[in-house]
Amino acid sequence: MTSADSPALQVALAYYRAWTSRDIDLAMTYIDPAIVCDAPAGRLEGADAYRAFMTPFTQILVSSEIIAAFGDEHTALVMYDTETVPVKRAPGAECVTVVNGKIIRSWFLFDRAPFDAARNAAS
Amino acid sequence: MTSADSPALQVALAYYRAWTSRDIDLAMTYIDPAIVCDAPAGRLEGADAYRAFMTPFTQILVSSEIIAAFGDEHTALVMYDTETVPVKRAPGAECVTVVNGKIIRSWFLFDRAPFDAARNAAS
Repeated sequence: MTSADSPALQVALAYYRAWTSRDIDLAMTYIDPAIVCDAPAGRLEGADAYRAFMTPFTQILVSSEIIAAFGDEHTALVMYDTETVPVKRAPGAECVTVVNGKIIRSWFLFDRAPFDAARNAAS
Repeated sequence: MTSADSPALQVALAYYRAWTSRDIDLAMTYIDPAIVCDAPAGRLEGADAYRAFMTPFTQILVSSEIIAAFGDEHTALVMYDTETVPVKRAPGAECVTVVNGKIIRSWFLFDRAPFDAARNAAS
């Protein structure tokens, strides 16, 4: 299977397009209610926790572009570079497992250090 | 092209196996002298700067396992979870561009926050 045929990547990219358009409701339609996500601050369990994690990020998002995106039947791996209000260059990467069109497992990676520094500078 | 046939992924994984074995000399054989790498602390230019960046990390590495790895002709994208001496769970992701068997461009992503916290706690 090539990434162009990957059902998992189609879901990961639809989800990516939704949250980078700041449409958290649409983004959440790709998230399984029982999602488990390992994020920098720790493990998130369930769609409510995931939504609470993503919502503030979509609110500070200025723009995003894909660096690379690949997938196979059940797994997709995407890296992107975002610009946010507090941090000019904030790349992220997500590895997701997709079952029945929903993301049930995610590894979510970004560098918290510049966000911490911006918060400290503001306070 | 599937990831199994990806020449870029073969190089990325050979490089990964080398540095996760703490063999920085072998790892550097996959790095182009003119590599440009966007790492969390900023842009690294050239193999000497890259080696100086990677060496301390290999010295604190306990173990690593691949979360996902994909590639095509010139690009590979790898996410892994490492255990290090100061930070128990330190996932990373690398997107690399490979030309003539060497990594010439890299996006290198990990969360610096737990490393900063460990350093502050130790001092």
